[in-house]
Amino acid sequence: MLTLVCDDQPGIVHAISGAIVQAEGNITESQQFSSEDTGRFFMRLQVESSTDREHFEQALRPVTERYDMTWALDVVGRPLRTLVLVSKAGHCLNDLLFRQRAGQLPVEIPLVMSNHPDLGELAAFYGVPFESAPVTDASQKAAFERRILEVVEQHDIELVVLARYMQILSPELCDALEGRAINIHHSFLPGFKGANPYRQAHARGVKLIGATAHFVTSDLDEGPIIEQNVVRVDHSQSPAELISIGQDEESRTLTQAVRWFAEHRVLLDRHRTIIFK
Amino acid sequence: MLTLVCDDQPGIVHAISGAIVQAEGNITESQQFSSEDTGRFFMRLQVESSTDREHFEQALRPVTERYDMTWALDVVGRPLRTLVLVSKAGHCLNDLLFRQRAGQLPVEIPLVMSNHPDLGELAAFYGVPFESAPVTDASQKAAFERRILEVVEQHDIELVVLARYMQILSPELCDALEGRAINIHHSFLPGFKGANPYRQAHARGVKLIGATAHFVTSDLDEGPIIEQNVVRVDHSQSPAELISIGQDEESRTLTQAVRWFAEHRVLLDRHRTIIFK
Amino acid sequence: MLTLVCDDQPGIVHAISGAIVQAEGNITESQQFSSEDTGRFFMRLQVESSTDREHFEQALRPVTERYDMTWALDVVGRPLRTLVLVSKAGHCLNDLLFRQRAGQLPVEIPLVMSNHPDLGELAAFYGVPFESAPVTDASQKAAFERRILEVVEQHDIELVVLARYMQILSPELCDALEGRAINIHHSFLPGFKGANPYRQAHARGVKLIGATAHFVTSDLDEGPIIEQNVVRVDHSQSPAELISIGQDEESRTLTQAVRWFAEHRVLLDRHRTIIFK
Amino acid sequence: MLTLVCDDQPGIVHAISGAIVQAEGNITESQQFSSEDTGRFFMRLQVESSTDREHFEQALRPVTERYDMTWALDVVGRPLRTLVLVSKAGHCLNDLLFRQRAGQLPVEIPLVMSNHPDLGELAAFYGVPFESAPVTDASQKAAFERRILEVVEQHDIELVVLARYMQILSPELCDALEGRAINIHHSFLPGFKGANPYRQAHARGVKLIGATAHFVTSDLDEGPIIEQNVVRVDHSQSPAELISIGQDEESRTLTQAVRWFAEHRVLLDRHRTIIFK
Repeated sequence: MLTLVCDDQPGIVHAISGAIVQAEGNITESQQFSSEDTGRFFMRLQVESSTDREHFEQALRPVTERYDMTWALDVVGRPLRTLVLVSKAGHCLNDLLFRQRAGQLPVEIPLVMSNHPDLGELAAFYGVPFESAPVTDASQKAAFERRILEVVEQHDIELVVLARYMQILSPELCDALEGRAINIHHSFLPGFKGANPYRQAHARGVKLIGATAHFVTSDLDEGPIIEQNVVRVDHSQSPAELISIGQDEESRTLTQAVRWFAEHRVLLDRHRTIIFK
Repeated sequence: MLTLVCDDQPGIVHAISGAIVQAEGNITESQQFSSEDTGRFFMRLQVESSTDREHFEQALRPVTERYDMTWALDVVGRPLRTLVLVSKAGHCLNDLLFRQRAGQLPVEIPLVMSNHPDLGELAAFYGVPFESAPVTDASQKAAFERRILEVVEQHDIELVVLARYMQILSPELCDALEGRAINIHHSFLPGFKGANPYRQAHARGVKLIGATAHFVTSDLDEGPIIEQNVVRVDHSQSPAELISIGQDEESRTLTQAVRWFAEHRVLLDRHRTIIFK
Repeated sequence: MLTLVCDDQPGIVHAISGAIVQAEGNITESQQFSSEDTGRFFMRLQVESSTDREHFEQALRPVTERYDMTWALDVVGRPLRTLVLVSKAGHCLNDLLFRQRAGQLPVEIPLVMSNHPDLGELAAFYGVPFESAPVTDASQKAAFERRILEVVEQHDIELVVLARYMQILSPELCDALEGRAINIHHSFLPGFKGANPYRQAHARGVKLIGATAHFVTSDLDEGPIIEQNVVRVDHSQSPAELISIGQDEESRTLTQAVRWFAEHRVLLDRHRTIIFK
Repeated sequence: MLTLVCDDQPGIVHAISGAIVQAEGNITESQQFSSEDTGRFFMRLQVESSTDREHFEQALRPVTERYDMTWALDVVGRPLRTLVLVSKAGHCLNDLLFRQRAGQLPVEIPLVMSNHPDLGELAAFYGVPFESAPVTDASQKAAFERRILEVVEQHDIELVVLARYMQILSPELCDALEGRAINIHHSFLPGFKGANPYRQAHARGVKLIGATAHFVTSDLDEGPIIEQNVVRVDHSQSPAELISIGQDEESRTLTQAVRWFAEHRVLLDRHRTIIFK
């Protein structure tokens, strides 16, 4: 699996496919996109090759250097080391863990962290270590965030998933995790930002409610959007019912975003995402 | 077709069904809703009766007075007298006129008014009178709005449809048409208000775009929502493509809202709509 | 919660609402439908009442007898006693148990039965008893079905859910459970009946795949449909990927059907279902 | 716009991108797919080039010959010469003509042919010639089909669209138009084949109805599927209402299929379609 980004210019595809031929590779899947907004070129290639990684990289290097590419090479299906943050609501965590165990989600989860002990039992059922600590004042929050960074370091974490983690991350932590932390927001952004979006949706009388998975940035609920889903509701449903209905969309939207990220299908084009489905 | 609204209290259904039995009516369809937000009771009944309208109303009166009901009685399928306002984009008008002629939309349209002459030909094809006048300064706007009110009066208009009419109505006109003017906004409200929502949607990188049909109020794009639809888009689509894709949602969303309104399925619960599908 | 079915005729609503007024009840929700196909009348009422059940039934009796009604009275939210049958695939069971525990599904599950031991651990995590026995020949099958009927008897089971139970029930068992057994079929019926529907869907190159929850009848995959969902697929997806994608639709479709049934929203109009949402 | 199909083997992408570099072309869009079912390789490329067509083809030839490619080269956005066949229902024709005129559908329609005169007025409004002849016996049918082939020849027709043309084409005509005739079937295939699918859908009590655009083959309703859509329905809707609801899906499904075909996004992999969106 090869993903690469560079400034758009003629000849890139020929150069890269030449390097792959030279490395005795065969392209089995290929997607590309040229952004008119930013002038950047994005490509995702799946390649079969009998060569080892070192020789493959060697064959690529002249091309990636000539075009000043940002690139990443990975083995297809390798599980991504993922840290999951939760609070009390378990629907997103349950979905991630169930699918991970069913072999439908290429992640491995060395730890679940929470500001509440409630979901420890669920994590234990799936055999995943669980750590919780209260986050009710500034010093506890700072300690919890330091611990997050420590875990990221220790376990070589590649993705942090906020699976209904009901705390706002500090700008410093947002920056430290830039491009590798995904949050699920329980509304159809940019619709209802901030707290209690289902209550807002009820008050406004919307006919569809939704969920948005996006990259975490220090600008709350404004990070690049990865995936969104909606579901139809009507006047008869109370805010509590909207919450219950919306949870399905939250789970499947977050799981989809995590899957795409783990499969290297999500690339960043400034504030927008390129999704190679 | 009988719709009624009153404060919620025990015995309403029994009282009203009693009056209908007395008027030799048979209830063939019935929907009701008690709003927890406002304490109001809403009901829509379809009744077969051999009695004439006068006797039917007479039988109802004691009940409607006792419960202080707001109510309306109409013959099922009677076409609603509808004025359509347009500018240059014809997709919504085309959909309304095509369906009206195909017998799928119970409206009659005595006139289409526009601030541009472009859609006159389309209206003519469907045999609907068309009137246009430029609206480029305040006095032209005032004259055009006076003409709207005159038409509403003359033709006994029951519904005004803003089918991509690209002018903001004055607060006075909004008030005069309150509860009987429907606008189509080309975004999933409350997502992108104001002008150029598709450009905003592209910049924000949303994964679904949509359309919202709502009652016109003087608070722009904040009127009670009647219907919404969305469609999936991706990173590869330009703002121009989003516009083209979104037009389908605009047409079907507006036509649906008009159909429900014409069938007396839309009731107002303060800022929210009750839709009896 | 009151549901009733009888031949359609004038005066039913008035009679039933009169009985409810007499029992000091207040109707908070009401839905009705007159079937043109069968001439039957269907009604579902939610009533608040200070009376006890006995007096309430007494007040209803004259009406239910006069109109020869089939009726059922239940307390809103009472969990339905539900037996779940499974084989090896756990996605539907996981969804049912997770939602049941989260308070989103008004069922209680005294037992899960299976023809394989694999899902015992999942049931145990949710604290639900689990029983399994091999069903590989006719005598084992007969024994397993006798045990099902015994369990239904012992636990006063009101609903049997086939949550990807990969065995065909005998006609006798189908008849014994008529109207209270729900199956999830992994295709959009009547599309691909029988085994391996995802493989059939792949071969046919369909662009949407789906799932169908239906009542079990001895006519395989032909029972009355309760709910259906679809999801978009494309040429690039293998049968194995279709299976994985389809599982989400299976889970949510089955859970939705179970929820509606448990809330007494599903009534039978010969071979079709009336769903009072 | 370049589309090509050949047996899958290593080096194709490099060879083709090399030929494009040589022709001074720049690839702006590229999609490929390797079919595991048939071992065929499919590619669609959008190329900017200052070279003229002749030199471009010359540069490609060595590659297309070496790999024994089936290929097609076209100018992006060139309107496809399209013949539309209709009967009495105008919703699909109206949608095609409206979008074609709005510049949203890259086709030009030199003629609409029908077995009824009814839609002549609609075609005339859009300025499209219209021809009709009764097709009520075998000899009229044979004559009508000869006229179709004559028109295809005369106008150099590239696509024949059956926009609710209610006649079965003869096997000979099906063969003559193979791979370039698209039909809209008014059900979610393989659900309800043959006549009156909405009546069948009502009788079966399905919860979703749909439409399927597919290539015409002599095996009725079994041609390769290009696009499908569904819409939710419920028990309260009569067959007549299903028809009305379904028409929207028919229009948009057919128009989408025509758009993709006209943009060379539809390739055939034996009985399945590859859709490069």
